[in-house]
Amino acid sequence: MKIIVLKFGGTSVGNLKKIAKVAKIITSYINKKYKVIVVSSAMSGVTNELLLKTKKISKNFPDEEKDVILSTGEQISCALIAGKLNELGFKSRSWLGWQLPILTKGNYSSSRIVKIKKNKLINYLKSGGIPIVAGFQGVNSDFRITTLERGGSDTSAILCAKFFNAEKCIIYTDVKGIYTTDPNLIKSAKKINKISYEEMLEMASLGAKVMQPVSIQEARLNRIEIDVRSTFSKKIGTTITRKKNIFSKNTIRGISFTKNDSKLTLIGVKDKPGVAASIFKPLYENSINVDMVIQNISAESRETDLTFTVKLEDLIKTRRLLENNKSIKFKKLVVNENVSKVSIVGVGMITTPGITYRMFKALAKEKINIEVISTSEIKISVLINKKNLKKSVEILHQEFKLNNNL
Amino acid sequence: MKIIVLKFGGTSVGNLKKIAKVAKIITSYINKKYKVIVVSSAMSGVTNELLLKTKKISKNFPDEEKDVILSTGEQISCALIAGKLNELGFKSRSWLGWQLPILTKGNYSSSRIVKIKKNKLINYLKSGGIPIVAGFQGVNSDFRITTLERGGSDTSAILCAKFFNAEKCIIYTDVKGIYTTDPNLIKSAKKINKISYEEMLEMASLGAKVMQPVSIQEARLNRIEIDVRSTFSKKIGTTITRKKNIFSKNTIRGISFTKNDSKLTLIGVKDKPGVAASIFKPLYENSINVDMVIQNISAESRETDLTFTVKLEDLIKTRRLLENNKSIKFKKLVVNENVSKVSIVGVGMITTPGITYRMFKALAKEKINIEVISTSEIKISVLINKKNLKKSVEILHQEFKLNNNL
Repeated sequence: MKIIVLKFGGTSVGNLKKIAKVAKIITSYINKKYKVIVVSSAMSGVTNELLLKTKKISKNFPDEEKDVILSTGEQISCALIAGKLNELGFKSRSWLGWQLPILTKGNYSSSRIVKIKKNKLINYLKSGGIPIVAGFQGVNSDFRITTLERGGSDTSAILCAKFFNAEKCIIYTDVKGIYTTDPNLIKSAKKINKISYEEMLEMASLGAKVMQPVSIQEARLNRIEIDVRSTFSKKIGTTITRKKNIFSKNTIRGISFTKNDSKLTLIGVKDKPGVAASIFKPLYENSINVDMVIQNISAESRETDLTFTVKLEDLIKTRRLLENNKSIKFKKLVVNENVSKVSIVGVGMITTPGITYRMFKALAKEKINIEVISTSEIKISVLINKKNLKKSVEILHQEFKLNNNL
Repeated sequence: MKIIVLKFGGTSVGNLKKIAKVAKIITSYINKKYKVIVVSSAMSGVTNELLLKTKKISKNFPDEEKDVILSTGEQISCALIAGKLNELGFKSRSWLGWQLPILTKGNYSSSRIVKIKKNKLINYLKSGGIPIVAGFQGVNSDFRITTLERGGSDTSAILCAKFFNAEKCIIYTDVKGIYTTDPNLIKSAKKINKISYEEMLEMASLGAKVMQPVSIQEARLNRIEIDVRSTFSKKIGTTITRKKNIFSKNTIRGISFTKNDSKLTLIGVKDKPGVAASIFKPLYENSINVDMVIQNISAESRETDLTFTVKLEDLIKTRRLLENNKSIKFKKLVVNENVSKVSIVGVGMITTPGITYRMFKALAKEKINIEVISTSEIKISVLINKKNLKKSVEILHQEFKLNNNL
């Protein structure tokens, strides 16, 4: 069987007219003799609306029941798509997480798929049916509904592609593909034709919100090729694939950035073993993600300054935790809310010398001060003043020739 | 175990504030040492909203998928109630149709419950949990979601009471009980303290929309006592029970009426065997419910007039079927859309002579013309001009002393 997985995001099924469009895309693959497995998100806005209800009931609304509620979003969109396909004369039905089943483990509201049982769906495909699988949901060993992390429908789709040995997984969304940077900020941003899993992972986790990082990681591990494209355009999108499939002269694939970072500096911290751990432990325990960290080297003095970034939404909590923690001794806490992180991403970086230098020089030329630096094998991130964000991305976009076709 | 079933209707769980009220009622029974099984409807309006979506997708939206969609209404309300109870410190969870399971047979969208599996829920009750069971839904042998007839949550509750041997089933709704007639039309309408299943069945199917007839029939067959009362009032409501438990001097228990009937008269129908069947067969095949029927006796002539009533919403379809049916010969079709059916209901009727006479006399005195009459053992219905509806109900309410306390 030539199987293909088509995943439709929330905006793609956002209203009944769009669902008709989705049905048309699905049948075009049927006409090409594919066996199609469809995975759908909830109609856009629905999940947030449902979530709001639970929050109004209780600040500690139980995750078990939250999952029962949130899963209805996909339940409805899948049944509507199946209904539309029936209307068009195709055999189709919805398949909910507990029906296949899609087995999950882990906590409610952030479960992970461990297995998708195949036989029912294979029989259904053989009978000529088009299964519409509810994304974002599964069932656990207690026979209760679970949901994955937010945006988990991508993961549902990738794992359907894995378990059913699909040729490909196509993510239909509201953007035309992955761009060299955010086209809303930089007009000259270009659509990338091919990007490696690794680059996409950096782009995704750094703020390019097209796909959920966990899903890309799953695709990478299982070597599933992903196409990201628009539901509302016939143009080809971006293929996310293995490094070896990419032939491009560009060292840098894209530039991502964040707008919601904040920088904290603890001045005059006692410099002794274990002090960093005692600072970060309470943050970890409160699920606060610490991103960039630098500590001044203190060869002589017994004091040091410690700087790190957290998401803006975690700032107040972080501050309170630091100030109330008696085991941390420091002289002063300085906070900067006006920072942005800009990152250049590309697998070619590791084999190309001088990238760091080119980046810093380009920024320096425009007198943009770099506050913090962090690097990985395929990316370099710098923290800058938020007011310089657009300019920084623009000059880096130019410096690494991302305006050219890729 | 002292088990009680509490069922909450759509308006009782209509918003989050009301759900808080519902939670309070539930815990009051827990405090009285009851083991409580809760059955909930969808939040008011939700089912219609979902239904509208399916209708916009397709006029022939498949019932299988419609059930997947409609069942989300109860899925959400149950989880919200369970979440609220958790917030209040009680152990509670939602139980969906497929989880117990509640096994159904029959067509999608009008399935009937054949069994409710007990062990999981019994264990849960023993562990001190408060189960919130989704009404209106079940699962069939194909492991697919089914729904009952509209209003089927009443049936879900009654059958929970049956399978779990509950002491009682309490239907919490937005009215204070069953009234002698519609209090919106007749100010002097009185709440009935006790009514028999049989009377309630007549009242329900004749237009008193408090409970779904199928659910009352199930209660009657299984001798389950039902209390109908308001979620928003502390006053006791109406008990629906066996005839032998009712001690009341009133022969007539209540008066029900319809506003959406229409009368059709076929004039000059050939009077030969099988003609009535040939008229009603196409109506039956098109799911049109024929209510009152009278045929003039034609001793000499070979022609007769045939009169019957159908719901106003079926009138156009009925008319078309009659006029397009070549096998039916008649001279003329006369339609009257301005008719109402008024019925007096009471189990005492069968042993009390003169009820029919009193009814007709009371109407005649006010010069209200009776167009069609039909009777059963416990009710007498008359068809009258709609303009006389209020007056008719008023004088019958007085004639049979329903203004007095019952």
